[in-house]
Parts: sequence; structure tokens; C-alpha cells
Amino acid sequence: MSKRVVTFGEVLMRLTTASHERFEQSNSYNINFGGTEANVAASLARWDVSTYHITGFPNNAIGKTANAYLKKSGIHTDYIKFIEGRMGLYFLEHGVMQRSSKIIYDRFHSSFSQLEPSLFDWNEILKDANWFHWTGITPAISASAAQICLNAITTAQELGITISGDINYRRNLWQYGKSPLDIMPDLISKSNVIVGGLTDFKNCLNISADNYEEACKKIQKQYPNIHTISNTHRETISASHNKLSAVLWKNNTLYTSQTYDMQSIVDRIGGGDAFMAGLIYGLIHKENTEALEFALASSVLKHGITGDANLVSVEEVEQIVNGNNIGRLLR
Amino acid sequence: MSKRVVTFGEVLMRLTTASHERFEQSNSYNINFGGTEANVAASLARWDVSTYHITGFPNNAIGKTANAYLKKSGIHTDYIKFIEGRMGLYFLEHGVMQRSSKIIYDRFHSSFSQLEPSLFDWNEILKDANWFHWTGITPAISASAAQICLNAITTAQELGITISGDINYRRNLWQYGKSPLDIMPDLISKSNVIVGGLTDFKNCLNISADNYEEACKKIQKQYPNIHTISNTHRETISASHNKLSAVLWKNNTLYTSQTYDMQSIVDRIGGGDAFMAGLIYGLIHKENTEALEFALASSVLKHGITGDANLVSVEEVEQIVNGNNIGRLLR
Amino acid sequence: MSKRVVTFGEVLMRLTTASHERFEQSNSYNINFGGTEANVAASLARWDVSTYHITGFPNNAIGKTANAYLKKSGIHTDYIKFIEGRMGLYFLEHGVMQRSSKIIYDRFHSSFSQLEPSLFDWNEILKDANWFHWTGITPAISASAAQICLNAITTAQELGITISGDINYRRNLWQYGKSPLDIMPDLISKSNVIVGGLTDFKNCLNISADNYEEACKKIQKQYPNIHTISNTHRETISASHNKLSAVLWKNNTLYTSQTYDMQSIVDRIGGGDAFMAGLIYGLIHKENTEALEFALASSVLKHGITGDANLVSVEEVEQIVNGNNIGRLLR
Amino acid sequence: MSKRVVTFGEVLMRLTTASHERFEQSNSYNINFGGTEANVAASLARWDVSTYHITGFPNNAIGKTANAYLKKSGIHTDYIKFIEGRMGLYFLEHGVMQRSSKIIYDRFHSSFSQLEPSLFDWNEILKDANWFHWTGITPAISASAAQICLNAITTAQELGITISGDINYRRNLWQYGKSPLDIMPDLISKSNVIVGGLTDFKNCLNISADNYEEACKKIQKQYPNIHTISNTHRETISASHNKLSAVLWKNNTLYTSQTYDMQSIVDRIGGGDAFMAGLIYGLIHKENTEALEFALASSVLKHGITGDANLVSVEEVEQIVNGNNIGRLLR
Amino acid sequence: MSKRVVTFGEVLMRLTTASHERFEQSNSYNINFGGTEANVAASLARWDVSTYHITGFPNNAIGKTANAYLKKSGIHTDYIKFIEGRMGLYFLEHGVMQRSSKIIYDRFHSSFSQLEPSLFDWNEILKDANWFHWTGITPAISASAAQICLNAITTAQELGITISGDINYRRNLWQYGKSPLDIMPDLISKSNVIVGGLTDFKNCLNISADNYEEACKKIQKQYPNIHTISNTHRETISASHNKLSAVLWKNNTLYTSQTYDMQSIVDRIGGGDAFMAGLIYGLIHKENTEALEFALASSVLKHGITGDANLVSVEEVEQIVNGNNIGRLLR
Amino acid sequence: MSKRVVTFGEVLMRLTTASHERFEQSNSYNINFGGTEANVAASLARWDVSTYHITGFPNNAIGKTANAYLKKSGIHTDYIKFIEGRMGLYFLEHGVMQRSSKIIYDRFHSSFSQLEPSLFDWNEILKDANWFHWTGITPAISASAAQICLNAITTAQELGITISGDINYRRNLWQYGKSPLDIMPDLISKSNVIVGGLTDFKNCLNISADNYEEACKKIQKQYPNIHTISNTHRETISASHNKLSAVLWKNNTLYTSQTYDMQSIVDRIGGGDAFMAGLIYGLIHKENTEALEFALASSVLKHGITGDANLVSVEEVEQIVNGNNIGRLLR
Repeated sequence: MSKRVVTFGEVLMRLTTASHERFEQSNSYNINFGGTEANVAASLARWDVSTYHITGFPNNAIGKTANAYLKKSGIHTDYIKFIEGRMGLYFLEHGVMQRSSKIIYDRFHSSFSQLEPSLFDWNEILKDANWFHWTGITPAISASAAQICLNAITTAQELGITISGDINYRRNLWQYGKSPLDIMPDLISKSNVIVGGLTDFKNCLNISADNYEEACKKIQKQYPNIHTISNTHRETISASHNKLSAVLWKNNTLYTSQTYDMQSIVDRIGGGDAFMAGLIYGLIHKENTEALEFALASSVLKHGITGDANLVSVEEVEQIVNGNNIGRLLR
Repeated sequence: MSKRVVTFGEVLMRLTTASHERFEQSNSYNINFGGTEANVAASLARWDVSTYHITGFPNNAIGKTANAYLKKSGIHTDYIKFIEGRMGLYFLEHGVMQRSSKIIYDRFHSSFSQLEPSLFDWNEILKDANWFHWTGITPAISASAAQICLNAITTAQELGITISGDINYRRNLWQYGKSPLDIMPDLISKSNVIVGGLTDFKNCLNISADNYEEACKKIQKQYPNIHTISNTHRETISASHNKLSAVLWKNNTLYTSQTYDMQSIVDRIGGGDAFMAGLIYGLIHKENTEALEFALASSVLKHGITGDANLVSVEEVEQIVNGNNIGRLLR
Repeated sequence: MSKRVVTFGEVLMRLTTASHERFEQSNSYNINFGGTEANVAASLARWDVSTYHITGFPNNAIGKTANAYLKKSGIHTDYIKFIEGRMGLYFLEHGVMQRSSKIIYDRFHSSFSQLEPSLFDWNEILKDANWFHWTGITPAISASAAQICLNAITTAQELGITISGDINYRRNLWQYGKSPLDIMPDLISKSNVIVGGLTDFKNCLNISADNYEEACKKIQKQYPNIHTISNTHRETISASHNKLSAVLWKNNTLYTSQTYDMQSIVDRIGGGDAFMAGLIYGLIHKENTEALEFALASSVLKHGITGDANLVSVEEVEQIVNGNNIGRLLR
Repeated sequence: MSKRVVTFGEVLMRLTTASHERFEQSNSYNINFGGTEANVAASLARWDVSTYHITGFPNNAIGKTANAYLKKSGIHTDYIKFIEGRMGLYFLEHGVMQRSSKIIYDRFHSSFSQLEPSLFDWNEILKDANWFHWTGITPAISASAAQICLNAITTAQELGITISGDINYRRNLWQYGKSPLDIMPDLISKSNVIVGGLTDFKNCLNISADNYEEACKKIQKQYPNIHTISNTHRETISASHNKLSAVLWKNNTLYTSQTYDMQSIVDRIGGGDAFMAGLIYGLIHKENTEALEFALASSVLKHGITGDANLVSVEEVEQIVNGNNIGRLLR
Repeated sequence: MSKRVVTFGEVLMRLTTASHERFEQSNSYNINFGGTEANVAASLARWDVSTYHITGFPNNAIGKTANAYLKKSGIHTDYIKFIEGRMGLYFLEHGVMQRSSKIIYDRFHSSFSQLEPSLFDWNEILKDANWFHWTGITPAISASAAQICLNAITTAQELGITISGDINYRRNLWQYGKSPLDIMPDLISKSNVIVGGLTDFKNCLNISADNYEEACKKIQKQYPNIHTISNTHRETISASHNKLSAVLWKNNTLYTSQTYDMQSIVDRIGGGDAFMAGLIYGLIHKENTEALEFALASSVLKHGITGDANLVSVEEVEQIVNGNNIGRLLR
Repeated sequence: MSKRVVTFGEVLMRLTTASHERFEQSNSYNINFGGTEANVAASLARWDVSTYHITGFPNNAIGKTANAYLKKSGIHTDYIKFIEGRMGLYFLEHGVMQRSSKIIYDRFHSSFSQLEPSLFDWNEILKDANWFHWTGITPAISASAAQICLNAITTAQELGITISGDINYRRNLWQYGKSPLDIMPDLISKSNVIVGGLTDFKNCLNISADNYEEACKKIQKQYPNIHTISNTHRETISASHNKLSAVLWKNNTLYTSQTYDMQSIVDRIGGGDAFMAGLIYGLIHKENTEALEFALASSVLKHGITGDANLVSVEEVEQIVNGNNIGRLLR
């Protein structure tokens, strides 16, 4: 049977203007749901990995619609809680050409931010799991969210489950009185696989380095649980044209990927989550460089798909890695 | 020159599912803006009444889009404030046949609810005004909103401006620690024209009566500033089929309107505001029954128009009142 | 082989707001093409009557799109002319409930209005035809359009072809210096089948009567070529709810139809043309009452179809006449 | 824990023209999925009944999309098979006013019709089930579909599970060489709850009767396993306006429901399945008349919802039964 | 008068997801019609070549809609047959960036595949024709389709009509028991103009060669009726970015075209058919290189047009060939 | 307080096919409003410059919708006239790849073209203005439009207001009997800032030059009021890919901008107006090169925005100039 992955984090409703319209122009918003951890879960579920996402939704039609979205994605929703409150939202306007993409968050006071830690029995939830995934978004939302995240990580560690964390530092969150350095080092130190860049390391671990390899060495020295560190590198020519590559630190080696030229970009939201999902899948099923290239190709494909989730198959990702059928017409 | 009306109240973004889709079905929401007081202002502006709406918006693209909507509607926006915070929202699913319409409010913590009373200089705002309009939604939102409303009404009374209030009691609001009876009697007592029904009078004035005429007499006795009281009566056969009539108490007389049979209803949101706008316009320009019938016909037409605002002309309303061209094809 | 019908008249581009939106609300207009005579042709072509429509289009992509629409409808376009100029347009807003439907015409200076009579060789066009159809819209547009219409009718009469005319009086047209009474009596007098009501007869023939039967007798006495006169009667409860019946004067007898109750009306434009097409088809294939009921049922079905053309089959019309499968689900 | 229901039958892709457009007009088709048994499952899953649907899909993106639809609906898909072949389709054009709705089926040669009986281990599938539901569509599709249906019913009977069958006779199916009377009596005789009308009984059981009560008595006498018989009665005024009532035979008594007047009908497809689901739910949770009224109100609500599935809650159905909040605006 | 071209082949309904959505995402499919031979006919009809397409449609609303599409395109439909059966379909998902485009065919058991050869009197159909066009899709569909194709080609040869064939080898078709080498050599040998590449020649003629020129020489030697051989060459950088060039073998000379850089590709389906149509038009109206460049520019423009048909004028193609107004704004 | 700019010119309704559809394909047109001078006003109003646009609209719902659009854009509409007549229109089909964009104008006989000069009291309109802007479109439309433009310019000159003119020569206009050289030199000679290229100078001033610098010197010598001359240079690789740069002649110096590579172009209509608006804003607020670069970056951003108006902020333009956040994702 396939590996069982558990993810934890907030799911937001995303309201996107049509095509590349600006907020002022749009008379309707396209609706979908996403969140960095749920996006990872959606990819893995699609790749036939048995996946459970843990979160909380408002107990109304909007929350139920979000839950149905997860089910449709193949994610198990057995442990999701419905409580009073509101759905976190974000408004998105896709950039194009030289113009930036814009997100307006409206996620404060959400149901998720007010979940009680006692709602979740992590020994039960993680019972048969092989992998637990979290990101730095969650501890930034509220004290209780940070506490639940810590509970989950602690339990996972006790159960000997592999723990991955995407540091994902966002300055605008962290409004509840704690700073990243108060919270993050503890969470990261218990993890085995982390994704982040030099800025993340500086802000969440207070580790500075001249280059990525040096940073990895420092982190691994200080936090011996962490055996794998990875990150993507994006070169932005315009909103429609980016270049993407990635690195993987493992076994005391820095593996470097090829670079993809991405033109006619459709939707870059979730590109990092597609990388994270690809990395988890790759680390389970493949060796170092193969894992890294799988993760990167997964991310590249995401840029051509509308919505947060990366609706591609393992075979499609592997074809990109192998340079087969790229951009062809398959009958 | 035409009368100058000032309205005060929150404007919400409305997110409506397409056609009669349920929330679970809809992949896009239609966007428009509305609020009971701004809806009144939109009607009056369309009828060439110089109208100023007073409110607060978040200082972002969503708030600016709401502001542009008011401008497009012909409303003057000179005194609107842009502050930090979020836009209040509501999600709407239109009912049809026997199925109810559903609203999910997401308006707590909005910019409007956090406006500082000191932001508004009512002597300046009301300087050349002839009419001030408020509703019972505003004092239900927050203590500061209630305070601003009171400031406005007090100033209007001092300046000798006609004051209208739509009592519009909503139990689900009033979450900030005050009850309607703490706040509403003071506001209502300073008003001259009020719209409400027996439930409103009970909850907001603690006045009970066996019938509407008796209630009006009691109110007028207790609150001599109030010279006009009105209300609509809706009979609901289904979401698609309603009957609508109205009454007007004035000059110690209860005027009763004709009853309209409304089939194939498109959008009933704002029907009450269309009545209120029609009543203000009617009381300025017409006599008793004519004013009432104008207000009612305005409301009937609203039920056939998508969105909160009643996009009809004075001539169109008068044609309904006069029974001309009803449902015809005008070339 | 089936009857060959020739129709002559202007085709307009129709720009319709979505659903029942008002002009101010609509960010896109649905596009289709229609004209009273072409609508008749579209019905007949659909009913396997070989049909030629004669008109003129601007020699640009808009004109070619209009022409392709006629082809798609099964109408022969061999004699259509492409000249300089503009496409006539009309903007349409569907009413609903008590609100009227509104048309804004923008048809002046169109290519059609500037067609040269010498462009059309009616002996060639009408060579194998059995029926020629015109309406009172055409002679109202311009002197040259009136002249071409007269040429066509005169030739048809010489060739012994049945001529039908839908009087269709519109006061707002007739802007080129002639009045209906200058032009119409000559055209009508050469026709054999006319559709019109008392107002049409008054304005275009200067014939007054107390009732329809009396009018028919007067017309037939004065214009012996006319052997058939017909009209529909519409009772408008609202834009969404009409009742429709019709009369047919023939063989010195006034035949009266059943009355249809039409609720949930979708699009009444072209309802009269659907009647006219049904009448032509009925007069060719059926006897008096059967012809009248076929014409009326054709018109009723049109009210449920978006666009100018009546996209129904002979069998569907006959099922309505026979009361079979009305509103059922056919698998 | 809630009852566990198992349903078996084909799921089709439905392609519907926009609004009430005719096939000739539509440039896009709305896509959804449905099938009479899966529609029943979707209702029950929504009402928190643990429900498993058994079917076969083509092993391509279309089949996977259909499967994701079932998951989104809350249905368990654990036993669904993916095999070679095509998805069965149907094209739908909603009628309106006097015009009929039209379905064009394109379901022959589907993957479902070619499922091997050996693919399904019914002892495993029905292990913890309390209820098995089938319809007369399935045995009409192919010999193997009929065989699988018989296998399921036989196993269910052995396991003492309640069996319901919706006879649903369709003459146009039954193309594989067997007639209904060859197959259906065996299947029906093993069932406990059946839905059907006099025509169904005549064609599938060769039982004739003057009225429904007489038919029920004959059926029960001949097939003692059947303890409950029910049916709806539809009066069609137009495609937009129907009246609906129902009867239930149980305990040797014929219970008769109220009659609903349904105007402004949105989508009648699945109306019978909504009744069937309501009946199953009602028979489990309620007594005779209450069960019948619940089933009927469920069906009425379905007529206002786009798509095959009845997206309503138990509370919403019960409010209709109780006459509460019908067509209101719920905030 | 212009040349009269006859084409023969199946027309499919195409169901395309919106924008670049994946099948799983799309709630509506855009509908259009196409088929390789009909696409050629549509181009030629648009270029004022009198064109007849021969095919068979199901005798239902879907088949009639397909037929109306051909009429709208200016193609003569006089010889098209309506028989029982289903419309062949294909589902299309446009790729973008590195992601491939995907087609799911659902064309087996179509009406076209079951046409009787006796339905078509090719002497009558080809009476005044100058050119007959077929492709290798048709003989791959069914034995009867192959027979009809052979009948047409044989008759065309007898009548001295130029015959063009686009070999268009598709391995997934050819399911009725014959292999390409059983059928194709006979059909190709009677043709005068063929389009194909080395793979086509290998599979359908059993001719291998190291390069295109050698292949052409071998073909012409073996099949002396063939005087013209051509093909396009596509370099795929991504689904959004291709390069396109072409070659033409004629008069014992291999002509080579310029190479176009195609970015922001909209729809590549029908690109080959646009080349074929351009080649037929070019061979009739132009000399060698001019014909080749016309065909290639026609194909390039197709990549920017949604749908199967190449909606461009001769002037627009010639402007591309001449490098005029490329990508400009023409007022 | 901010600068007060007055603009004068026709506003047209624009009807655009969806995506890149050709006119023949489109079943709906997107509606927006624009005109070269109003587009400049819309940019300036958005940049908090108090802006009045002067024009005339038809006195119907279409004209009122156009007026509401200007209000929504933040433009003051106090001096706009509503008269009889029709709205000028243009139909637009966006090109893509090698295919050109196409405009079909339908603007003759518009209300604007028939405005009476006496309707506008320029002393009143320009009372507190600092800047007046006109373009060469206006005097090309009709004799009265040219006269009103001259009146405005003459008054502005008398009042000492800065006058800018965008020469914008269009051969297809100028149908009322005057040539550009009859009218334009007088209007240009009174202006202070002009935008144009060598072709404009030749046709509207009869000034020829070998290069831009020489032309500027000649113009300034002959027309000493002109102190600033500017223009953009566009290199068209395809409809989707242009390069854009600009020059500014001022203080006897020719300033040259950077060149932008614009891929994935969305909508180039209004690109010149965005430059003009940026130039006016730049000349008021910035020095030479900074003004030029601001204008150019404004134009570049416009190419990524649907519709005529450039919906960007000053900050967004400045970020492009400074190379910050180009094409990023801003949260």
C-alpha cells in the first residue's frame, strides 16, 4: 500500500478576477480553494498517495464547499473540524507582461485561526502515517494555530514519522504578538526536511550565510534532525516569463537542477507547493537528483494550470523530466 | 435646484452565485456593491436628486472599487474615508420556486465598524442638506458606528433637516454588547419619517400594538418628531412569486396602497431600499397616496433588476403607478 | 418540390444585454441577427421551404457575418448585395415582471437604406418563385427602399406570384419625407395576404372600423386583390406573462383561434414574424382554421426561444396545436 | 452510526445547452454527471447517510472526472472499476413555456455496458450494508449489466438487506435482445420497496389494474417480498409549470400526499431520483405519511436546482414539509 | 467561375475545455465542429472556391447543427446524408507552456462509420468538379468508409479530376481488421498530390528513405500519378511556442519555405488542414514556391484562431507571405 | 491642490470579440467606452489629477452609460451635453501571433459630430484649468467639431493655459470636405506640447524631415508656441510581441528612452493615450528624462490591461521605471 501523508494548515477561498483583469474591472470572481499545505496534499492524493488534510472550516455552506473541494481532490477529510466563524479569503489579480500579480488577504479572524488545540488528537490522526507536513504560514496565524502545529510535530516526532516543513516566511502575518524567532526554531528543529531560502533562514532561524551551501551546513550542524534542505530559484523577466531552477542539500551534497524557461505563464500561485509535493514524492520514490528534478518539473507544470492545485499526473511530470512530449499534441 | 440628501451607512461587497446555483455549485460569484442606505442614495441620485453618501472603505483596491461604484451611480463621494481594514462582505444565493434565498454575512471587523467618530464633521457634511437618512443596521454594527449615527442625527436635528430612519431590525447583528432598546429609541425619537413594522416597533421602541394604525398612534404620541410612518407588506407564495402592498401613516390617516402580483422575481435584495427611496422622493414631490404608490411601484420594479440598486427612472416608476406600458415592448 | 418563397428586407445586428440586465449593467452584449422579413425566411427554410432572402449588407466582416447567419439558417443568399456603408443595429434590453422591454434603434444611414433599385433584377430573382413577402418596415426606411419594394411587388404581381405583406406600422421610422399614406396603399393593394390591426389599417390605408370584421370587409371591397387578412391579439399581464390569440379573415369568414397563456416568456422579439411564417406555411399546406392555429402555435413557441428566429420544427408546432407533449420531457 | 446504503448503476456525462437554448444555438455545453442511482446516492450522502456507489468508468480523464464528482458529492467510490471504453453521454436542452425538454442519448457501447460480472464481489461490497438500491435502467442496458444487477440483488437478499428498485421503464433502451418481461420480474420479486406506475407494472410485471391501489394489491399478492410501493404523479401545464403529488402503498394502506404547484421550474431532471432518495431516507427515519411527504418535498426542491443532484439538506426538505420559510430570504 | 472542389470525410463535434483548463476543471465545454477534410473545405469556401463536402450525419439535432455549421462556412451540403446513429466526438484540452495538449477521441460507432457505399453516386457528385480531396483518416475508420473513399477516388480518376490525399497516418484508428498497407497504396497511387512525412510513407506505402527528397523520388517512381508531394515541419519548443516550415516536391525539385516563429499559440488543431487548403489553393492559383509559402502562411495564421477552421482571407494570407501588416492594428 | 486638466473629444462605445475571436466567431461582444482624449483623462483622474472631460452623448440609455463610465473613472462630467443622435461605435478584434488586430469604425453621424459650438462656454469650462488637451481626431470628424476644438484652444491660449495636442493623423476620417492642412496648422500652432511622428508632421503641418530631431527643430522654428515634442516608436514582431521606446524633444535636446520588450500583449488600444497621459503627468511633476520614462512605462503597462483605459497607479508606473517588482507577485 502507498505511503500515508498527513498535512495541516488553513484552506482559503480564493477569489480571482477573470483573465488578467484588475480588481476594478471585474464583475465576477472565479472561486477556488487552496492553502499551501492543502495544495501539497492535493498533488500527493492525485499521485495515489493516501493523504489526510487536517484543518478547520466554518460550519456553513462556504465551509462545506471547501470540504467538498478537498474530497474531490482525493484528500481524506475525516479529521476536519467545523466550527463557528468565517472562511479566510484572498483576492487575486493575475499580473501579465511587466505588471505584477496582486493578492489582497482577508484571512484574519478566520475559523482556522480560532481552532482549539484540544480539538485534535494527534496520536489518533498520525496513527498509521509515514509523513507529516507543515509550513511556516500556520504558526504565523495565531497562538492556537502555532500550538496545534507544535502538538502535531511533537507527536509525529515521537511516532518516528518523517516531518517536512516549508518555512515560507511572510512578514505581514505574525500579528498576534510573537515573532518568528520565538516560535519557528523549535518547530524547524524537530523537522527532517525543510524548504527555504536565505531570507527564511535569517528570519526564522537567525542563521546568516553567504551562499546556500554554507547555510545548509550551518543549519544541519545546529539542527541535526534536518537531513534534507531544498529551495527553488526564480528569475522574473516579467509576470508572463520566468525562469525556474532548484537546489537540494542532502548527504552533505548540494544537487543543482536544470533551468526551465517558462513563457506564457498562466498561474504561478501554488508553484512552490507543487515543488514541495514533488519533493516529498521524490524523496519517497526516487534518489537525490531524480527527486529534485521531479519536484522542479512538477512546479513548472503548475505554472500552466489555473487554480492553486497542480492537476498533473506522475507520468506527466516524468515526461517533462525526461524531455518527452513537451508541449506536443497527444491523441 | 434639486434637494440634497445625505445618507450614512456601510457598503458591502456582495458575492452572488450565478443564476440560482447553490453555493456548492458555483465556480464564480458575481460581484456588486450595496448597503441599505447606499441603495437609497443610488435611487435618489438616479432621479436627479443631489445625493452624498457617507461611509468608510478599506484603503485598498477593493475599497476603491466600491467607491468607484458609488461614483458610477451618480452619488457624491467627497466625504468618504479610506482607512485600514477589510471590506464587509456577504454571500448570496438566490432562491427559486419553493427554495429560500440564503445570505451568509461576513461583515464583522470591517473598516466601517471601526470608523472613528472624529473622522466626520457633520456640520460640514450636512451644511446644505435638506434630508438625512439612516437605518437601524448602522447602530447594530459597533459602538462607534452607533455613535457616529447619533452625531449625524443630532446635528441634522439642530440644522432643521428632515430625518428619515428605516428601523430594519436584525437580531443577528447587535453583537457589541448593547441591545436595540439601549440605542434605538434615542435615534428614532429625533427622526421625522420612519419605516418599520410591528416587530421593529416591539424590538426597537418596546411598543406593542394590535394593528398598524394603533402602533402609529402610540408612536406619534410618544415621539412627536415623527410625522410619517410607513411599511411594506409582503406575501410570499414562493421565492419566485410574491405579492406586495404598503401603508403610510401621515396626517393622522392610514393610507393603503394597491397590491402588486410579482411573478418571475429576479432579485428581491434592495426591495425595501427601493421603497424607502421612493418614499423620500414621493414625500418631497408628491402628496400622500401618490407618494405611497410611487414608493411601492419603485419597490416592485426593483424585484426585476439584478443587484442591490434600483436602476429605474422616475418616468418608469410613474408608468407603473399609472398602469401604462406595464411589461410592454418599447421601441 | 417544395414551394419557393422570396423575402425582401433589412437585416439588423441585435445587441442584447445578458439575462434581464439593464443597459447600464451589461458588460457584454449577445449578438445575433434578425429582421422581420428574414425572420419569416428563417422559419420557412427550417420547415424545408426553399427560401431566398434579398437584402444588402456592408462589405465588411460584420456584413459577412450577417450573411453567414442567413446561410446557417438554411436561407439562400445568392442575390444579396454587398455595398459600402454600415450595418443597421438595435440594442435590446429584455423586460421582466412589470418592467417593459426596451429597444434603442441605430439603423439610420445603413447600407440597406442606400441600396440602388437598379441592383436588383426582380424578373431574375422571382423567376421560379411561388410567394413573395414584404413588410411595412421597408418602405418606411428610405425612398430607395420603398422603390425597390414597389419594383418587387409589381414584378411579383406580373408573374402571378402570391404576395403577402405584414403592414407593421412604426411611426418612428418614416423620416425621409413621405408619409405611410403616400406609399402604403399602392403596395398593399397589389398584395393578396395582409397582416395588420386596426391601427395599421387607419395609418396605412386610412380605413377606420369599429371591429376587425368590419375592417376586413372594407379592405376587401376597396382592394380586391387581398383575399386573406389576419392578425394576432396580445394581452400583456407583465413582460413575463402574456396571452395570445389570433384571427383570420378569409372566404368572407372570420376565424378565431384558441388563446394561449404564456408564462415565463423568454424573448418576444420575432413573435409576429413567427406568426407570419406560420401563416404562409399554413396557407400553403392547410385549411383555414388549421392554418391559423399553426401560425399562432408557431408564435407561441417563439416566445420561448432566444433570438429573432423561431428555431422549431413543423412537428413541434403541430404538437402544440394538437396539445401533445406540451412542456414534457422527450427522451 | 448512520445507515449504509449501496447503489449500483451507470453514471452519464450530461451536456446541457445554456439557459433554454436549443441545440442549434449553443456554443458551449454545461457539463455535469448523473445517473438515476448515483443521484439517489448523492442525496443520501448529503443527508449524512454513508453511501457507496458501484459503477464502471472509462480509464481516462473523463472517467476520472466523473469519479471525482462522486467523491465531491460525499459518495464512497472504493469499489468503482476503471476499464477501457467510452463514457455514456446525454445531451439535454431544457424546455420552457409550452416547449418540451429534449434529451439525445449517446450511451451505447459505454464502459458500463461492458462491465464483466466477475469484477464485482458483492459479498464484499454489501458486507456492512443495510440497503441496496437498483433501477430498471440497468438491466435494460446490456446482458452483463442485467447479470451484475441480478448478482447484487441475490446477494443482498441472502444478506437480509432491504432492497429498493425504481422500475423506470424506458422502451428505447432494451436493445440487446431481451424484453423487460424476460428480466424484470425476477429482479422486482426479490425487492422490498418498489417505485413505479401503472405503465411500469404493465411492461415489467405484466400486471394491469384500473387504479393504483388495485395494482398494489395485485403486486403484493404475487410478490410477497414487496412491502412498499410508491409513485409520483406529475401534471404538466407547461415546461415551466407542473403540479406534483405522490402516493405510498404500505401496510395495506394507500397514503396520498399534498399537491405542490411548481412554477418557474429550473431543472426537472433527477426529480424522480430526489423522490426515491427521500423515500429511502423517509422509510428509514420516519413513518408512512411523513416518509411520503419528505420524499415529495425533496422532489419539489430538486426542480429548482440545476444538475442531476438534489443539493438540499434534510432541514430544508423538512421546512418545505412543514410549510416554514418557503421561498423566504434567510439571513 | 471559380474551381469546384469536392471533399469527403467525417465531421466530429469537438468539446474543448475553457482556456487551458484541464478536463477535471471544466464545467463547460466549448462546442464546434471539424474534421480534417471539412476543415480544408471551410478554408476553400472562404476563399471563394465553390466547395462541396460529402459526409453523413446522425438524423438528430446534433447532426443538423453540424450541417448548419458547414452551411455557415459557405460549404455546399447538397449531398450530405442523414442516417441513424451517433455523432463522432472528441474532447480537447489545450496545452500551454511545457504541458501537452490532449485529445480523447469518442468516434467509434459513429453514423459516418456506418454509411452504406450505395448512398453516394459519385458520378453525380463529381460531375462538374475539378478537384477531389481525401485523407488517410477515412479509410482507417471502417471498411465501408474505405470503400466509399475508393469509389470516390476511382470515379474522380475516371473523370480526370485532380486528386489530393493527406496521408495523415494514425495508429490508433485502423481497428476494423485491415492494416494501412492493405488499403492505402491503392488509394494513394491514384492520387496526384499527396501530403505526408517519412513516417506516413513508411506505414502507408512501405517506402523508407533517409531524407525527404529521396522519399519523393522513390514515391514518384513507383506511383507516377503523383506529381506533387509536400509536408510541414514543426519544431516544438513548448505548447505555446512552435516553429513551422514546409517543403514541396514538384517538377523533380524540392522547394523549401521560410521558417515562422510562432509564439502565444492559441489553437494548433487544424494547422495541417490549413496547410492542405493553402496548398490546393496555391497549386491552382500560384507557382511552386508561391504556392508553398501561401500554404505555410495559411497554417501559421490558423495557430492563432480558435476552432478547427482557418477563418482568414486570401489577402490576409498573402500579407503574411509578403511580410505586410504582420501583427499590426488595422483601422 | 492638484492640477486641473480639461480634455475634449468624442467617446465611442467599443465592442470587442471575446479573447482573440474573429468577428465571425463571436456570439457576444464585450462592451467598454473610450476615446483618445477621454483615455488621457481617465489616467490623469486615476492619478489624482482633477480632470474634466468635455463631450456630447446621445440622450438615451447608451449615452448615459457612457457618462456613468466617465464618472466611475473619476472624471468630472459637469459640462457634458446630451443631445439627439447616436453613439459612435467601433468593433474590435484583437490580433494574436502574426495576425493583425482589426477595427471597424461605425462613428459617422454620431451625436458628437453634430454638437453645436454654441453649446460650450469655454471661458466657463476652462476657468480654473491649468492644462487643456486635444487631439487630431476631433477636427477630422466634422466642421462643427473642428470649430469647437478651435474655440477651446483659442480660449485656452487667451487664458494662458498649457495646451497639448496629439496630432494622431487618420486618413480615413476627414470626410467632411476639409483636408488636415486646411485645419491642423492653426490648431497646432497655438499648442505648447505636441505628440506626433514624421508622417503626422508631413500630413498635418506639411513639414518633412530626414529624422526626428530635424523635424522638431523645423517645427519649433515655425511654431514658437510649441516647446515640447514627443513620440513613441513601436517595433512590431507580432501582435503579441512588440518593442516600445520613445523620444522627447525639449530645451533643444532630444531625450531618448530605454526600450521595453513587450511579450504576451493583452490590449494595445489606448497605448498611445497612456503615453500622452504619462507625458502630461510627467511634464507637470518631473524633469525631462524622468517625464519621458514615466510616459513610456505608463504606455507599457497599458498593453497588459483590457479596455481603453490605463488602470494603473503612479506608484505602479514608477516601479516599472525603477525596475522594481516587475512581474512579481505582491502580497
